[in-house]
Amino acid sequence: MTSVESLFSRVGAQLSGSAIRQMGILAAGRPDLISFAPGYPDPATFAWPAYHAIVDDLLRGEDPETLQYGQTRGYGPLIDAVVPRLGLRGIACTSDEIVLTTGSQQAVDLVTRLFVDPGDVVLVELPTFTGAIAAFRAAEAELVGVRQDGDGLDLDHLDAMLAAQRRAGKRVKFLYVIPNFQNPTGGLLSQDRRRALLEWSLREGVLIVEDDPYGDLWFADVTRPEATRPIKADDTEGHVVYLQSTSKTLAPTFRTAWVVASGPIIARLDVAKQSADLCSSSLDQRIVHEAIVRGVLDEHLPRLRETYAHKRDAMSRALSAHAADLVRWTPPRGGFFLWVHLPEALDTRALLPHAVAAQVIYVPGAPFFVDGTGANTLRLAFSAASPSRIEEGITRLAGVIRTAVEASVPLAPRAGR
Amino acid sequence: MTSVESLFSRVGAQLSGSAIRQMGILAAGRPDLISFAPGYPDPATFAWPAYHAIVDDLLRGEDPETLQYGQTRGYGPLIDAVVPRLGLRGIACTSDEIVLTTGSQQAVDLVTRLFVDPGDVVLVELPTFTGAIAAFRAAEAELVGVRQDGDGLDLDHLDAMLAAQRRAGKRVKFLYVIPNFQNPTGGLLSQDRRRALLEWSLREGVLIVEDDPYGDLWFADVTRPEATRPIKADDTEGHVVYLQSTSKTLAPTFRTAWVVASGPIIARLDVAKQSADLCSSSLDQRIVHEAIVRGVLDEHLPRLRETYAHKRDAMSRALSAHAADLVRWTPPRGGFFLWVHLPEALDTRALLPHAVAAQVIYVPGAPFFVDGTGANTLRLAFSAASPSRIEEGITRLAGVIRTAVEASVPLAPRAGR
Repeated sequence: MTSVESLFSRVGAQLSGSAIRQMGILAAGRPDLISFAPGYPDPATFAWPAYHAIVDDLLRGEDPETLQYGQTRGYGPLIDAVVPRLGLRGIACTSDEIVLTTGSQQAVDLVTRLFVDPGDVVLVELPTFTGAIAAFRAAEAELVGVRQDGDGLDLDHLDAMLAAQRRAGKRVKFLYVIPNFQNPTGGLLSQDRRRALLEWSLREGVLIVEDDPYGDLWFADVTRPEATRPIKADDTEGHVVYLQSTSKTLAPTFRTAWVVASGPIIARLDVAKQSADLCSSSLDQRIVHEAIVRGVLDEHLPRLRETYAHKRDAMSRALSAHAADLVRWTPPRGGFFLWVHLPEALDTRALLPHAVAAQVIYVPGAPFFVDGTGANTLRLAFSAASPSRIEEGITRLAGVIRTAVEASVPLAPRAGR
Repeated sequence: MTSVESLFSRVGAQLSGSAIRQMGILAAGRPDLISFAPGYPDPATFAWPAYHAIVDDLLRGEDPETLQYGQTRGYGPLIDAVVPRLGLRGIACTSDEIVLTTGSQQAVDLVTRLFVDPGDVVLVELPTFTGAIAAFRAAEAELVGVRQDGDGLDLDHLDAMLAAQRRAGKRVKFLYVIPNFQNPTGGLLSQDRRRALLEWSLREGVLIVEDDPYGDLWFADVTRPEATRPIKADDTEGHVVYLQSTSKTLAPTFRTAWVVASGPIIARLDVAKQSADLCSSSLDQRIVHEAIVRGVLDEHLPRLRETYAHKRDAMSRALSAHAADLVRWTPPRGGFFLWVHLPEALDTRALLPHAVAAQVIYVPGAPFFVDGTGANTLRLAFSAASPSRIEEGITRLAGVIRTAVEASVPLAPRAGR
């Protein structure tokens, strides 16, 4: 095998797995283990009878196109159905400004390939989604992190980091940002900062890639839908590439997401998708189309918001009851995630085997940081587990953290952090 | 938009669409137009009642995993079901040597990213599949073509081209080859040459990427299944990466294909797929799994072979009747395609608008050649149209070619060929 390994590309030789995906594999088939790791939607929310009726109609129809190759750009009626939904969120666009993708992950990957040559800079939040980091690294982007505070991205730090990159002669292609219920922090970028970011984008000639899988999942007790208005809604110059997904609302299996961008960008993404997977599943796109036009998604969303707000409460309450003296967190105003800071001396990667032994898992925070920090942080997804499992899992996790804190010698950080 | 366009990557700035996909768009929604362009399976062969029963059972079961994110590597029971099927084709492998992909196009793309740095050489057949060419170019590979004759790849030319690349200091990563009913020529690589190619691969330290979407579709009147034995079947050293798909046998919509390769290669493809689309559709993979274990695929294959052999006969007969004095072709021994040579003076790209006017389309041959040749060739897919439409379409096409040949001035080739 030596000769084969010598043939790997630079990227191929360095590939290493995602912390989140590894946790997903660890959790599979272990019913006693309580997983707060992957950002899976609650399967109890899946609209089984509706999908059953839709697929029944689609297969009874025997329209050959349902099982055939489709257009790379996506199923036309679904694209047309997405346009008015985007309008409700303030985004005015035409069908020519949309391409459907095999999940948002493919959208991030294709957008990256469209803009990034090896060595180009992509600006990201500290911390940010590991799947996006992986796609950027696969294109040999250099990643530069920008700090966040309680209102999201720190604009002064953004300016400073951009200036430093330009002084170093780097080409900065885009800023990747998740304004609504960020992954992993759960944070909500303020509307003032969104407007300022758009101005920054135009002033500096750097695009914004706005990833919004959680925007529909705002919690009514602490925020309003207006607070989730996308940056893209005010983009009249084609400087924002906007990504939305059905994986967190309908179901992940349909692998159906979309990119909204200017016509010239969409035309190129269409061609890039041809070489990535030719087209997404015709059947899956038709199921999503029917779920939208039959009102399944709209009926579903209020229930999802309630379900996830209730789970956030369960997790926050359990943390208050069992770990208030050990950790810091801010209850999120939407989405799937609760972000936790442990005492500085602890490393959540070193802690993980102890958590697994106690039958509870999370994702260590460090992989979300492109600057090597975050060792004492972790991400908890409250989306998939039931409230009673959340209570039990947090009790277990608090026990693990307490033991570590009370040990006379702090847990040693691993090498290579 | 000027500033946005200045931000495109080298690859992004040069993206141009596939000739095949453009023909697919042209044909959509024009029922009077007879399309021999895309390699679509015949929708009349789709096993509608079987899929209907399978999906009904899957959705009635309400197993949360059916609609959830799945493992990146693919649905375990499907991987396990693929192993013995590969065994029947002579390929001995374990589940650890398989990764499922979102169609074979994704497999080509991921394999390319795993091995190719910008400027590396990929060897391809002259002509070869445009979708693979697009994936190689997206990785900035340099493409070097190797001639084919009636038995497939010309091994002397292969040696000469490899030697020339090495003299020029190039790194040659792999040879991409479609041994069974090649796309676009329909050719079958002889078993002697397959053995010689494998020896060449080991001797030269160059991998073989063997793409085999059509291998099950051999025509019993002119060949035997033994003639389709994959190169991978004799690969004991992990030098062959083998791709197989269900798009041409079950249906394209399920976007389900697989890569068979050594464990270290598969482990890296798994990680590469994480950043490409996280995972393929759980539902689609379960449908394919059930179609295999319930025997749908095995019952289906003999009928597919008969159907496509019958259509090949219809097309070959029509060409003999209407164009024997105008064109040359060799009836294929399997697959979807019939490859046609026109008189040297004709350019099939210049001819295409005339064909469209006559309500028939094909794919011009030149885009399949990486060396700029092939202007007088074209690819006809006999797979999708009915025998009577094939007869009518060939009559139309023969008329177009005859008019061009009889014109005193040959049709001018377009610029940029």
